[in-house]
Amino acid sequence: MEVRQEAIVKKTDYKNFPMVPRVVFGRGSFDQLGDILMPERKHSEAPFIFLVDDVFEGNELVFRIPLIFNDQLIFISAQEEPKTSQVDALVKKIREDFHELPSGIVGIGGGTLLDLAKAVSILLTNKGSSSEYQGWDLVHNPSIYHAGIPTISGTGAEVSRTTVLLGPEKKLGINSDYTTFNQVVLDPDLTQGVSREQWFYTGMDCYIHCIESLNGTYLNAFSQSYGEKALELCKEVYLGNLTADESHEKLMMASWHGGMSIAYSQVGVAHAMSYGLGYLLGVKHGIGNCLVFQHLEEFYPEGVALFNRMRQKHGIRLPKGICANLTDGDFETMISVSLAMEPLWENALGENWREIITPEKLEYIYRKI
Amino acid sequence: MEVRQEAIVKKTDYKNFPMVPRVVFGRGSFDQLGDILMPERKHSEAPFIFLVDDVFEGNELVFRIPLIFNDQLIFISAQEEPKTSQVDALVKKIREDFHELPSGIVGIGGGTLLDLAKAVSILLTNKGSSSEYQGWDLVHNPSIYHAGIPTISGTGAEVSRTTVLLGPEKKLGINSDYTTFNQVVLDPDLTQGVSREQWFYTGMDCYIHCIESLNGTYLNAFSQSYGEKALELCKEVYLGNLTADESHEKLMMASWHGGMSIAYSQVGVAHAMSYGLGYLLGVKHGIGNCLVFQHLEEFYPEGVALFNRMRQKHGIRLPKGICANLTDGDFETMISVSLAMEPLWENALGENWREIITPEKLEYIYRKI
Repeated sequence: MEVRQEAIVKKTDYKNFPMVPRVVFGRGSFDQLGDILMPERKHSEAPFIFLVDDVFEGNELVFRIPLIFNDQLIFISAQEEPKTSQVDALVKKIREDFHELPSGIVGIGGGTLLDLAKAVSILLTNKGSSSEYQGWDLVHNPSIYHAGIPTISGTGAEVSRTTVLLGPEKKLGINSDYTTFNQVVLDPDLTQGVSREQWFYTGMDCYIHCIESLNGTYLNAFSQSYGEKALELCKEVYLGNLTADESHEKLMMASWHGGMSIAYSQVGVAHAMSYGLGYLLGVKHGIGNCLVFQHLEEFYPEGVALFNRMRQKHGIRLPKGICANLTDGDFETMISVSLAMEPLWENALGENWREIITPEKLEYIYRKI
Repeated sequence: MEVRQEAIVKKTDYKNFPMVPRVVFGRGSFDQLGDILMPERKHSEAPFIFLVDDVFEGNELVFRIPLIFNDQLIFISAQEEPKTSQVDALVKKIREDFHELPSGIVGIGGGTLLDLAKAVSILLTNKGSSSEYQGWDLVHNPSIYHAGIPTISGTGAEVSRTTVLLGPEKKLGINSDYTTFNQVVLDPDLTQGVSREQWFYTGMDCYIHCIESLNGTYLNAFSQSYGEKALELCKEVYLGNLTADESHEKLMMASWHGGMSIAYSQVGVAHAMSYGLGYLLGVKHGIGNCLVFQHLEEFYPEGVALFNRMRQKHGIRLPKGICANLTDGDFETMISVSLAMEPLWENALGENWREIITPEKLEYIYRKI
């Protein structure tokens, strides 16, 4: 889950959580998008901006996007994690192209595209660089209308109140009540073309999040019920015998419930360590979690055993030797970045986590990767 | 579930479903209400109106309601199902008492109080009687801000887009996108004082809804995942060995997920027959469903077996002989009311439901009650 940064949640905080106020689910529901956006159009000069994963360039999906008036379609690569500089450039372009604010932003793609759509909709009404808003509740003005349409399942970005960006100084989410989408369209058919590897790594984002939050100390009954359902659906998808259609539908719901479970829960060891890996080596979030999680049987014995069964069933070979040529300084960097994620460690191991996890132990695990 | 009237859903309709945009969950979260309402106060002359179940009169809960300025507290009995005349009278009173629209309406209680709060918030901005809006999407103007705070779990009224009212001609919901609450506060501590019988009947509202929708033909993966989780939580609550705290929390989440599962599902035989019972005899919704459901082993064998185990475990004795002194005309009335619920029968038994369920069979079941 992208909200590994939603770190300052304490057990006794009951956040007044913003839910996506509108959601449509169903095969082919993407074709309702035109009708859904129409009442949100301020007038013919205020366009919708569609940010679309560039893997869809030339795909029939593009021809189903309800472009009218001076709407704009922008293809964006999701090869790298979304950056604050990318958000700022998009905002600048939109401001230059149009005299006034657009009617809204629509993100179509995976976590990267959804996060970009969220961030652009915020920055269009808030001055300065997106990097100034990385943190908790720093956004003062409501964002413009924004809709999210996932085309791969697992990140939970479609339902969360954050957008995680790589900034000049830090990788951190813009966590705010204005981040949450105004509308989500859940069309399982859109996830048909995903490669097996990407399908696995992104789904494991949801699975690993559930294992960490359900085994954590921060959980309450709200998040537990969502997390349990998400986990159950992951098991059905990766270990059951579903049709392709059922599998797409259930993984989409797993991601949705997993994202909802974030409201009152926290991630744990895999995310804390994966963060170090991502910071030093730029490893992407989904695969980074998998690389770490496979070696965490000490902390999540059942979860890791199931993970290995899923991996084997789908013939996924994780890359090896990622940390083989790192220097001592590199390990120190990763370890200090990881240990700084205090709420994650406290959630995973309790208040006395420093007695359980040591720099030596972290290095031992990192060296296996 | 109160949405037995959400009857016109077809399998191929993907409704763009409104979710409650704000929710807080946690023991003691009720005490956040003052902070939550503050930014919604238009100014000191625009009050909040609190509609509160009169079982709380004199209870410490009342003293925790954040009354300021000219806020109004109105105690209402939940002994009978909510009526359109009751809504109209409340709206008239509020209009007479204040020069302008209130800042909002807060319902504190079970399904009856929550439904009244929803309906009053709609009628304050829509002319005429509430009975004119019973049906689907007849409300034109947005309602005023309204918050729901359940004190008993099971109806799903806290999360649904309907408010079921007994009108002069029909019992039917005001189903609209403006019906859904703007804010829900889920504080499991508030459900501590409920009697065993009421706890059982209201929880069974959720349970029976799940059995009907999960066994129906209208289901999709969205509603299935919510319904499955709600059902699982009901089983934990009524057949597991939970602490009182866990039980309150989990039943509150069962009701929440059960309410969400309504988005793309439909109820079945128990609700269709219970509707006849309610129409003729005024039997309340929760107990009416139980009275019918116990005799539906032919349609829901596993569901009824589990229901009987739950009933026995908690020593619930359902009243008997309800239909003992009815005339032939009475049975005809109940049967025709019940058979008119076509989408429920189609959901339960498929397109050829008329070949499976006959007036004779219905009378046979009604006579057992």
